[in-house]
Amino acid sequence: MIDQPNFSGVIAPVLTPFGEDGDPDPARYTEHAEWLLGDGGCNALAPFGTTSEANSLGNDERMDLLEDLVEAGIDPQNLMPGTGTCSLSDTITLTQHAVDVGCGGVLMLPPFFYKAPSDDGLFQYFSEVIDEIDDDRLRVYLYHIPPISQVGFSLDLIDRLRKEFPEIVVGLKDSSGDWDNMQAILERFPDFELFPGSEAFLLDGLRAGGVGTISASANVNGAMMRKLFDDWQSESADEVQAQIIAIRKTLQGYPLIPVMKALMAHYRADEAWAVLRAPNMALDSATARRAVKQLADEHGFKLDLATPV
Amino acid sequence: MIDQPNFSGVIAPVLTPFGEDGDPDPARYTEHAEWLLGDGGCNALAPFGTTSEANSLGNDERMDLLEDLVEAGIDPQNLMPGTGTCSLSDTITLTQHAVDVGCGGVLMLPPFFYKAPSDDGLFQYFSEVIDEIDDDRLRVYLYHIPPISQVGFSLDLIDRLRKEFPEIVVGLKDSSGDWDNMQAILERFPDFELFPGSEAFLLDGLRAGGVGTISASANVNGAMMRKLFDDWQSESADEVQAQIIAIRKTLQGYPLIPVMKALMAHYRADEAWAVLRAPNMALDSATARRAVKQLADEHGFKLDLATPV
Repeated sequence: MIDQPNFSGVIAPVLTPFGEDGDPDPARYTEHAEWLLGDGGCNALAPFGTTSEANSLGNDERMDLLEDLVEAGIDPQNLMPGTGTCSLSDTITLTQHAVDVGCGGVLMLPPFFYKAPSDDGLFQYFSEVIDEIDDDRLRVYLYHIPPISQVGFSLDLIDRLRKEFPEIVVGLKDSSGDWDNMQAILERFPDFELFPGSEAFLLDGLRAGGVGTISASANVNGAMMRKLFDDWQSESADEVQAQIIAIRKTLQGYPLIPVMKALMAHYRADEAWAVLRAPNMALDSATARRAVKQLADEHGFKLDLATPV
Repeated sequence: MIDQPNFSGVIAPVLTPFGEDGDPDPARYTEHAEWLLGDGGCNALAPFGTTSEANSLGNDERMDLLEDLVEAGIDPQNLMPGTGTCSLSDTITLTQHAVDVGCGGVLMLPPFFYKAPSDDGLFQYFSEVIDEIDDDRLRVYLYHIPPISQVGFSLDLIDRLRKEFPEIVVGLKDSSGDWDNMQAILERFPDFELFPGSEAFLLDGLRAGGVGTISASANVNGAMMRKLFDDWQSESADEVQAQIIAIRKTLQGYPLIPVMKALMAHYRADEAWAVLRAPNMALDSATARRAVKQLADEHGFKLDLATPV
């Protein structure tokens, strides 16, 4: 692993709970974030990822929730909010806000509406965002998730951004699911903070020079991932990684965001937690019960939530 | 054609010019919009379409530009702004603003970040937007453009929305490029305002019950399309349609938004017009010159702009 990465370890793209009025619920949100950083096992948080339904939130909703986290006492240096949108100007607004709030970094999607943009166009986009913010505190993590955004980062584009902004473009979350791509990034950019976007690659990533994982399921299985991250050089590491992968496979038998919200609803005994914002939809209650039972039966899985609502 | 459609004819998704500072330029914008509604041949305007680089604009930029059009004296009943974003809340904000400004309709993309949403999820999304606006003046045109948004509208989803909101969900822009889909919509929903998203289908659409076209190239070739729309039952209609298709094919030899901006820059003698917002990029100047020349040589094409800047 590189010396003194800016971020490392297990990072959860924080689930966003909604209140009965359909608005994001700050109380449930900060409670979940605090739990994640405690018993939940996370080293840091990435609010407003794909898992957070961030792209279903408005800009104002995102900025309000980020301030809620900081006001709840979470060190903003441990926060890497998603700030990348389709729009250059909205991305600048969200990124400037994250820097102003003191966040340790931002996780930035490429602009994803127009398909097959050129590397020149993407380079110019990121350059304009970074030049407009013009702040030494800015740390950008590129968010590579072609299965959903369709638009991703080529190795050559990463290289250009690294060379132009070596102190600012410091890492990447790779949610391609393609280990070859992660290996190629690690080999070509040894001083880059690479986070596999799936905990299935946590151990392989650490062995190859990665710094942790930013993964959806850290919302519910972060403690086990943390155990692996902390003891990855121990003899039991492969066994823990196998357990983590087994739980992930069960989760993947269901739509991922809905099943994690169903688990939250069950273990917090709080049905509001099950709700997603359209177009994403909650599991029906029979499926939710089946998921809870399957995880418990097959893996002894449960969430120890210190402070039920 | 259906009796008294809310919108009909040639509608341009208005190109968005940027000023030297990179911000949208209201003076060039309103000048272009006024020209489109005059010599440009358009019956109405659809600001903030794909061609408008709308998804590269911020919410505030869109709302400001819409107000600029109305303040310039354009009847808002002739405006059908794009208001669909990834985000339920941003979509509500933009749609409410369009209704408040008095727009005759809105053109709404489905939420397009999360891929393969269910029809139930999309139905709920549109229901929530419409219920939240809760205004009899709202007229929603669905924007079906799966090649870019990836997410589209199934016939069954259109049917559910029509049945639930018969006075509000009144039409659709079909940019699928799939004439079979347009025919299927026209047959199943005879009282629906269908706009092919390409002028190549203008005449076939009118013959089958469509009401016009909302097409990128109406920004530069609207007058010829208007001639076809006004005289579509004349003997020369097929010939005019063939000419329109020939010009479209030449345009399609270039990236479409950049080449139209290059034409604007050339015929207004105003290089600022050539600029796109990243990640979209302007044509290089040699390619721009080649496009102008090819269109002039092959089609006698030029833009008669009444009021050069």
